[in-house]
Amino acid sequence: MTAALLATALPTFAFAQTPDDPAALRDAALKDEIAWDIVEGLTTEVGSRLAGTETEARARQWAVTKLTALGFSNVRIEEFQMPVWVRGEEMGSVVSPYPQNLALTALGNSASTGEQGLEGELIYFPTLEALKTASANSLHGKIVFLDHAMNRTQDGSSYEAFGPARFSGPSVAAQKGAAAIVIRSVGTDSHRNPHTGVTDFEKGVKPIPAAALSNPDADNLFRMVKRGQAIRLRLKLTPRPVGRRTSGNVIAEVPGSDPSAGVVVVAGHLDSWDLGTGAVDDGAGIAIVAAAAKRIMVSGTPRRTIRVLWAGAEEVGAYGGDAYAATHGGEKHALVMESDFGADRVWQIEFNFPKAASGLRDRLAAAVAPLGIGKGKGEANGGADINALIKKGASVVDLRQDGTRYFDLHHTPDDTLDKIDPEQLAQNVAAWTAVLAIAANAPDKLGNE
Amino acid sequence: MTAALLATALPTFAFAQTPDDPAALRDAALKDEIAWDIVEGLTTEVGSRLAGTETEARARQWAVTKLTALGFSNVRIEEFQMPVWVRGEEMGSVVSPYPQNLALTALGNSASTGEQGLEGELIYFPTLEALKTASANSLHGKIVFLDHAMNRTQDGSSYEAFGPARFSGPSVAAQKGAAAIVIRSVGTDSHRNPHTGVTDFEKGVKPIPAAALSNPDADNLFRMVKRGQAIRLRLKLTPRPVGRRTSGNVIAEVPGSDPSAGVVVVAGHLDSWDLGTGAVDDGAGIAIVAAAAKRIMVSGTPRRTIRVLWAGAEEVGAYGGDAYAATHGGEKHALVMESDFGADRVWQIEFNFPKAASGLRDRLAAAVAPLGIGKGKGEANGGADINALIKKGASVVDLRQDGTRYFDLHHTPDDTLDKIDPEQLAQNVAAWTAVLAIAANAPDKLGNE
Repeated sequence: MTAALLATALPTFAFAQTPDDPAALRDAALKDEIAWDIVEGLTTEVGSRLAGTETEARARQWAVTKLTALGFSNVRIEEFQMPVWVRGEEMGSVVSPYPQNLALTALGNSASTGEQGLEGELIYFPTLEALKTASANSLHGKIVFLDHAMNRTQDGSSYEAFGPARFSGPSVAAQKGAAAIVIRSVGTDSHRNPHTGVTDFEKGVKPIPAAALSNPDADNLFRMVKRGQAIRLRLKLTPRPVGRRTSGNVIAEVPGSDPSAGVVVVAGHLDSWDLGTGAVDDGAGIAIVAAAAKRIMVSGTPRRTIRVLWAGAEEVGAYGGDAYAATHGGEKHALVMESDFGADRVWQIEFNFPKAASGLRDRLAAAVAPLGIGKGKGEANGGADINALIKKGASVVDLRQDGTRYFDLHHTPDDTLDKIDPEQLAQNVAAWTAVLAIAANAPDKLGNE
Repeated sequence: MTAALLATALPTFAFAQTPDDPAALRDAALKDEIAWDIVEGLTTEVGSRLAGTETEARARQWAVTKLTALGFSNVRIEEFQMPVWVRGEEMGSVVSPYPQNLALTALGNSASTGEQGLEGELIYFPTLEALKTASANSLHGKIVFLDHAMNRTQDGSSYEAFGPARFSGPSVAAQKGAAAIVIRSVGTDSHRNPHTGVTDFEKGVKPIPAAALSNPDADNLFRMVKRGQAIRLRLKLTPRPVGRRTSGNVIAEVPGSDPSAGVVVVAGHLDSWDLGTGAVDDGAGIAIVAAAAKRIMVSGTPRRTIRVLWAGAEEVGAYGGDAYAATHGGEKHALVMESDFGADRVWQIEFNFPKAASGLRDRLAAAVAPLGIGKGKGEANGGADINALIKKGASVVDLRQDGTRYFDLHHTPDDTLDKIDPEQLAQNVAAWTAVLAIAANAPDKLGNE
């Protein structure tokens, strides 16, 4: 169902209620243009914004200007320091028996091959589990090709299933003596755009060069493997760590009327991977949460303060969320929410609420149901930028987005504005607006209030 | 309609006729695996094959081995010489006011910027016509950004409408004093994969650096243009001409029984652009024509010799077709056909036949109609590799493929095997088999017989 259809189907909601009624606010938001304006501006005027680099710093300045222009209060940057890794040159090829170039990209924290590059015999593993069971040192000097069989899932659960190929595959290969590793991209598209993302070398494991192949390249390499001859690969990857640098969170507020109430945090992350322009990850998320907060702002003063958190340095280790918690963890947080799963429509709402607030939970579910959003059976678990607050007792609402095509774009050069459907983006804003309109004013005790 | 549906719908054809009946051959070809085997092998074992380079030479050796193994007669390479241009480094970026990297690729025949690169102010033209009307020398030292509005068309006619932006835009910009030009890719996708292809600098015009932007990059640059500030671009492109080199045509035959009859040529091109693996352009085409010829071969001896022509150096100027005509133009050519528009289903048949052969035309149209192929109202016009033969009087049949998604892939890194639908590929083979089964045996006088 599209937002346009919903807008047509819901005139009774739009006309039967007062302007600052949650349902009316929700339906007006189906024509939202604020979120589009934010993500269009950020991707056009800043583009990619790797954490701790000059591009992320420009994004923070852009953010302060934009949030100030939107009328938010207490707009500020809260800086922090974090370790930075930057991409270098990257080239790969099959040397023999079928010489071909490979489209690949280094994973975050990959070691360098050095300027001279590296050549070795390929050893194939169909799964991370197969790699884990390889005998110690059997990979000595080899280049591992780690495959997997990720598929599309609406809820993104295939990322949990196949993401470990990227998260820990390189560390496992390094422990067993491999010279380098290439993995099939953790992604669901069929384009020559490899998916980057961090990989984590375990403490004490010396990092090796680690790259992701695009899916068509992984397909091609697997066809070569099936032919049975020994395969030699050549890699040149020259990324490097550049030490600790400055990142920062951008914060803006809609001040509440009740000084005894806890804060409502609505979060996304401002940084992006370096290959695309960070439209769906997470330009859309920060646009959605700010647009919804702005809509509450213009409708009147909420009881609770709504705090917009555009976190820095999420992609490379959620440093922004940790920095926020370190600074603000002592404050009362009633409710925390995050949007970091693209720009497609919300299809499910879930909660992590105190038992006493079950009435509020039902009101929220009813408020978003007309947008085609059902109530899930699980528990809300937030996102990377608010995890630390959840551990401290904040209540959570998840507005789960449709992730069916998210991993076509995730961490690739293809994460660009044209992938965002304005109608689905506006449906997100409508859902967030409805939840904020109710939750920011609710009398129920939430979180650690 | 898919080939699978057709196969289910047509049991009467398959069972009501003798095995070497055209309809039976056609229907059996709906389960063809020969074409897939050829294009899978070529893209896996050779990959990209730029004309006049070592990769194209490897492709010729691969082709001789494959066509010999398939049982064709007179399998041979006919070499020729042609000028070769090779890609170098390529990088582009917006310097100000919104610094961002651009995904671009040099057009064939582009000049080099030199190792030091080139910087200049952008000047925007929405169409080639607007560029043509710009005053002489008004572009002096500028970098032209030439935009256009290509859309999908089933018959590929939008390539004729918007292709000239690439074919002649750079020459027009050079004549008016531009330092360089970037064009929006002549393509219909939304991926960060720019479309290369030759550009033709007119005689006497000194080539300038010329590149294609991916569509998302062109979108982004246009959004910057709309903001109204002066934009500076930086380009580094280091392609170079490397002089005349060896290319060649690969030829294989199904010998006919009637020495007085003309030859039937079925053509595609073996070379590809360097960015992808040349799956749809034109691995699929050479696979389709050879698979159909093989199916005729095993069904018995045709009256006319069927000559498979896997032409070299088509992409860079149809040198292979010209070389074939120079060598074989004096022979009698009854019928010539080419497959060079991807791997999607055939939807239309057209003819360029002698008037006396109108009965044969109707038989051919009737033979392919059960495959969902209608008769067009225009005239067959062949393809680049057989144009010279058509000028000498050969008759032509076009089996027009559905080009709706062809320009998503054309001349990009994304031209890879996974884009081919095996069922649609087999429908092509079925159509070609039906036409060859009838036309190679027809008593009618065709071409210059």
